[in-house]
Amino acid sequence: MKTTIGEIAELVGGELVRGSAEAEMSNFAALDQADSSCVSFYGNPKYKDQLAETKAGLVLSPSAEVEAPEAVALVVVENPILAFDTVIRAYGVKPPEFVPGISESSYVAPDVELDPSKVSVLPNATVSSRAKVGNGTRIGSGSVIGEGVVIGENAEIGANVTIREGCIIGDRVILHPGVVVGADGFGFEFVEGRHQKIEQLGIVRIEDDVEVGASTTIDRARFGETVIGEGTKIDNQVQIGHNVIIGKHCIIVAQVGISGSSRIGNYVTLAAQTGVAGHLTIADQTTCGGRSGVISSITEPGGTYFGYPAKPMKENLRDSMRVKQIGGLLKRVKALESKIAQSE
Amino acid sequence: MKTTIGEIAELVGGELVRGSAEAEMSNFAALDQADSSCVSFYGNPKYKDQLAETKAGLVLSPSAEVEAPEAVALVVVENPILAFDTVIRAYGVKPPEFVPGISESSYVAPDVELDPSKVSVLPNATVSSRAKVGNGTRIGSGSVIGEGVVIGENAEIGANVTIREGCIIGDRVILHPGVVVGADGFGFEFVEGRHQKIEQLGIVRIEDDVEVGASTTIDRARFGETVIGEGTKIDNQVQIGHNVIIGKHCIIVAQVGISGSSRIGNYVTLAAQTGVAGHLTIADQTTCGGRSGVISSITEPGGTYFGYPAKPMKENLRDSMRVKQIGGLLKRVKALESKIAQSE
Amino acid sequence: MKTTIGEIAELVGGELVRGSAEAEMSNFAALDQADSSCVSFYGNPKYKDQLAETKAGLVLSPSAEVEAPEAVALVVVENPILAFDTVIRAYGVKPPEFVPGISESSYVAPDVELDPSKVSVLPNATVSSRAKVGNGTRIGSGSVIGEGVVIGENAEIGANVTIREGCIIGDRVILHPGVVVGADGFGFEFVEGRHQKIEQLGIVRIEDDVEVGASTTIDRARFGETVIGEGTKIDNQVQIGHNVIIGKHCIIVAQVGISGSSRIGNYVTLAAQTGVAGHLTIADQTTCGGRSGVISSITEPGGTYFGYPAKPMKENLRDSMRVKQIGGLLKRVKALESKIAQSE
Repeated sequence: MKTTIGEIAELVGGELVRGSAEAEMSNFAALDQADSSCVSFYGNPKYKDQLAETKAGLVLSPSAEVEAPEAVALVVVENPILAFDTVIRAYGVKPPEFVPGISESSYVAPDVELDPSKVSVLPNATVSSRAKVGNGTRIGSGSVIGEGVVIGENAEIGANVTIREGCIIGDRVILHPGVVVGADGFGFEFVEGRHQKIEQLGIVRIEDDVEVGASTTIDRARFGETVIGEGTKIDNQVQIGHNVIIGKHCIIVAQVGISGSSRIGNYVTLAAQTGVAGHLTIADQTTCGGRSGVISSITEPGGTYFGYPAKPMKENLRDSMRVKQIGGLLKRVKALESKIAQSE
Repeated sequence: MKTTIGEIAELVGGELVRGSAEAEMSNFAALDQADSSCVSFYGNPKYKDQLAETKAGLVLSPSAEVEAPEAVALVVVENPILAFDTVIRAYGVKPPEFVPGISESSYVAPDVELDPSKVSVLPNATVSSRAKVGNGTRIGSGSVIGEGVVIGENAEIGANVTIREGCIIGDRVILHPGVVVGADGFGFEFVEGRHQKIEQLGIVRIEDDVEVGASTTIDRARFGETVIGEGTKIDNQVQIGHNVIIGKHCIIVAQVGISGSSRIGNYVTLAAQTGVAGHLTIADQTTCGGRSGVISSITEPGGTYFGYPAKPMKENLRDSMRVKQIGGLLKRVKALESKIAQSE
Repeated sequence: MKTTIGEIAELVGGELVRGSAEAEMSNFAALDQADSSCVSFYGNPKYKDQLAETKAGLVLSPSAEVEAPEAVALVVVENPILAFDTVIRAYGVKPPEFVPGISESSYVAPDVELDPSKVSVLPNATVSSRAKVGNGTRIGSGSVIGEGVVIGENAEIGANVTIREGCIIGDRVILHPGVVVGADGFGFEFVEGRHQKIEQLGIVRIEDDVEVGASTTIDRARFGETVIGEGTKIDNQVQIGHNVIIGKHCIIVAQVGISGSSRIGNYVTLAAQTGVAGHLTIADQTTCGGRSGVISSITEPGGTYFGYPAKPMKENLRDSMRVKQIGGLLKRVKALESKIAQSE
């Protein structure tokens, strides 16, 4: 990014009320991270103290009457958050353009159903026999689309993603690099001292508008389907076992693990590093705090849970507080003991 | 899947005792997940309640005298579990057929030892110099086999797997997509304010019949070998440090981490999200519950451990119960205090 | 490895004081893991007991006057640790040689800036438009370098690594197989019942001499940069959220997760499976024990923290001890109660 304060004021339709229009800007950052080469923004009064000490070169501000260091240029705009967004869209890293066509370095089986004038298959990708790919979808470099996989329209399959045979991916789904969809579920029978594999012959179905973070793994069902419901957003390094069913519009944060056959409702939030045991149900709109360990079903919707085993927030706080009370208890018992000893 | 109840009855050698042989079936599911297009099965009396309320189109049942909704067709078979297995093998997603040959889109170094009439190398795979690949083995698309790697017979190397130089993989080993075998162990010496790399020049040896889940990482030894013993099954996103030695027929569930140089015995089970510190020993047939944190060696075989630090189950339960007793203790101490105050 | 004790003595410049120079050695191992085919070493008196019982064929020792089983050959050297290092470098698995050139099986966009006589691009790698790759750098098989990515000199990009558009990688950086750099941060706004994506338009900047373990994921910033400071070493399966800033020379062990916008100082150690919540600061030289959960900022440098929530080691020990005291408390209160009952 190379630009001037004047150009930025013009871009966002704002008024330069302090500083030089010629000054050059080369980066952008939050108020407390910015240096004099950076555009920043003041969008919320709770960052008043950061504004007062910022080293930014330019701040997009809702008013000229704000307390910012003298060296900081100010451009007044109606909505600084939206204006800043305009700046980073104009000068930030651009996502690669969608260029339809099949790279010569990729492998697409002859019986794949896709329209090469509307689908983009990048170098070193593999699209296996009988797969179908919808228009507007991009298959990233090094990704591997298994036999008979069906991918909807305008989906973004990242680099080095693997989707195994028979899985179904909806419209506008985003799979980030390294995601694995449809690996075998973890199922064995113990026969004569050895773990014998139980075949995993189901699929994974990912509904429309789901986003899945880097290196997340979603296992295929033993039979039937593992399902990720419409609009659910999954972060990096999440592990989802076979036959799990996740509802719509959930938020599953990084490094969560959900064991086989559990069912997560709609609008559920599982914060980072949470674990959910197998064959459980979690009701709609449940929130589990970071690193919760859910080992029994949550049947009432809308609750907030913490800890391992996960308990309603209140119970969890009470238990933590109680441990802190032991010190006091020890003293009180000691006092009682000496009183009684005296009275004996 | 498109079939009729009559065809399924024939396939499993069962008798249609209720419902129409012409009814079409297009899917299969567990009793409580099935709709009228689904074949299901009733294999265990503990699912009696699910049978009584199932919406399945057809249930494979051990008897005609069971309580199922009237709309549900019944086919009686001797063993419903095996019969259902037959159905899903016939109509479920088929794993890709093994087709020997080396894809033109792959790269196989000239000095690799493999028989192209008996090995399958899929598109965009890389097999490096001096590697050896046994008959019946498949190398998945996008996978990278390092220099001098030796892979046994009938192994299944998934898509986008990486096996680094010198590692040894046994017969019938399954590595799921995204697995990394033989990356450097995490070893540094702190010299003059900087972490200096300690070279990692050993290998990983994976014995026969091991299965390794998607995106699991197994580091090469500092010297000598990191070993995964025969028949051990490892789930997704497990991390195994350098010089770890895992015995035979263990079960290591998702997101477990085992630090460097620890030794796990035979028939050990580590449930999901367990952590094992470095340089420990875990005795044969130990079971660690979900999210255990093992920070000292377990020397007696056959025990069950929970919690962090991992303790025998009984001790763990006792500690949990004690925290619950604090509330009662507080009340009893208060009562004592007021009694004594009265008596003063 | 196939050699004799005599050759090893010569290699390390040591004196054979016991055993036959003709005896063949084929492996190396620690004292307690070695068998008669193995070279081992005795570098530290704390392993005296292991030396007394070792089954090694040959031990490199600082002196002839040590207690080792009679069957064990001894070669005396000044520094057994260095001498052993010499042996494993000579006979251990060799890392693949650096061979400059662009594999015909790779894809390098026409406008990439790199010198093919000094850079190595291995088969099935993809280097996208406008990328720059410094001399002495190797791009591993199956890896994907995004548009406009800048990689320094003598870097090692492992197999199946993904680096997304615009990210910056320093000199001598090592990215192990399966690493994902620059996937989108996890950011959504909840609008009318749906999670709406917040564009992630920043980058990741990895400074010189950083090493990143297999399958670790480092998300791009919302805007500006996610930064990994010079000399920091990151283990496998670590998750680093958007806009995180990690200082210089830190050690981040396997399966750690750091949430968005947190700032880690210099010389910080986060042991395995630690979690750090978002928008926190961790002061220089802090150490967090295995599986710590940091949920508030740590402002004083140099402390050691444990537990969830992470507390200074002392506090953590006290809380653990207190739980153990509840049993005693119960008994003492019972005794008091019966005394008072008697006195009533």
